[in-house]
Parts: sequence; C-alpha cells; structure tokens
Amino acid sequence: MTGTTIKYHPIGFVENNFNVQTTGSLIKSSESRITLDSDLAQGLDGLVAGQQVLVLFHFHRSEGFELLQYPQGDRHRPMRGVFSLRSPRRPNPIGATIVKLVAVNGNVLRVMGLDAINGTPVLDLKPA
Amino acid sequence: MTGTTIKYHPIGFVENNFNVQTTGSLIKSSESRITLDSDLAQGLDGLVAGQQVLVLFHFHRSEGFELLQYPQGDRHRPMRGVFSLRSPRRPNPIGATIVKLVAVNGNVLRVMGLDAINGTPVLDLKPA
Repeated sequence: MTGTTIKYHPIGFVENNFNVQTTGSLIKSSESRITLDSDLAQGLDGLVAGQQVLVLFHFHRSEGFELLQYPQGDRHRPMRGVFSLRSPRRPNPIGATIVKLVAVNGNVLRVMGLDAINGTPVLDLKPA
Repeated sequence: MTGTTIKYHPIGFVENNFNVQTTGSLIKSSESRITLDSDLAQGLDGLVAGQQVLVLFHFHRSEGFELLQYPQGDRHRPMRGVFSLRSPRRPNPIGATIVKLVAVNGNVLRVMGLDAINGTPVLDLKPA
C-alpha cells in the first residue's frame, strides 16, 4: 500500500450484547444502538425512523489480512481475493452495512441489521 | 469526536478526466479506472466483469464540515444534518459508491458509476 496515511476519528460507538465476534446473521437479527458524540447530534437532523442508513465502521478487533481467504472461513470452498469478500481481515478494516433506522433520540440511534460487535467505532452514517 | 485516531492507507487511486469537482452525475456517466497497488492485485481474485462493487474512497479535496448543510448546496431547500446527506464535507470524509465493474486487468479495474475525481485515494472494495 502507499505510504500516505489517512486519519479518521470515530463519530460514535456501537452498543449491543455481542462482546465477541459471532456470526453476522445473529448480530444482525438483534437491535443495536449507535451512540454518537453528543457534539455531532445535530448532524442526524433529517434522518427518520424506517429509513435505510449506510453505516461505515472500523473492525477494531481485526488484525492483519490475507489477500486470499476462504469465504466465511469455510475451507471446503475455494479461496478468493479479499476484495471479493466481506471479511473483516482486509487492508483497511472498514465495515459497510445498510441498517434500518428504528428510532433517533438525541445522539442515540436504534438500528436493526447491523453486524458489528459492542464497542465498534463508527466512522460515518449516510442515507443508503 | 473522540480522541481515538484510526489510520488507513490507500489501496489505490482513481484515474479519470475529472481533475476538479463537478456534478456527481457527470463523473458517474463516464468510465473511471481504479489502479490498485500492484502488491494487492491478488486480492481482486473472484471479482468479475458485470458485478456491482462498493467502492470506499477518501474525499481528499474536502476540508472541514458543517453539521447542517444545504442539500447539494441548494439554498432554496431547508438545511439538513450531514448524516442525512452524501456531501463530501463530513466529519470523516469517506465516500461510498456502488459501481459496475467493466473489467479487471491485473491491478487495474475499469468501472462505471464512480463519482470520485482523478487522484482520489481508494480505501476499500467490497462486493455490493
């Protein structure tokens, strides 16, 4: 990768009952909260319950990557390039998931469909 | 925002004929190339022409942000929160666009539908 360094700061953090990585589908089927830095709450203006939102987050527990990986760790399937997979083990460990916004209260969003564990730093929110 | 700093490095760069920001729709209707660091080319294995790919990129020309902004700069519309908009002026200036993969040749991808200017650092590629 190039030597250029790009620096970001979390805008908030995920809160849910999953403290260790589990199957994405189990986390997705539960509600998560995203608590934004309170200074940024005004930036949520215009987001409405029921809307789909793209959540960009940092896989903070992920260390290192392989260019070729088994899809979902399944060694019975052929290895594939990391950019054709959604593995957290990637050169820049950024997750991108479209969630359904359940509610916004101040600086706290309740969302369904997020597959990030408790404590995950959130980088950005956008309309999906 | 929190004091935690998250550091990424570009995996490659966008190449097209747009050296200054213009309307996203004009760039989108043209073909762009994404040239990956050649060391990462193997990570493209499994991506096929015709497929939709999510491109995450860094708005490298964007400086600063406002929590409330006019949608697409249109002062005739009410201001809205930055997280309900896709403005490049955001706390972490990350762009996320789904493109159509036209072709992969070695470490170079030809894509349609990308709305990033020439020289934009690319952070990640994922199946859309």
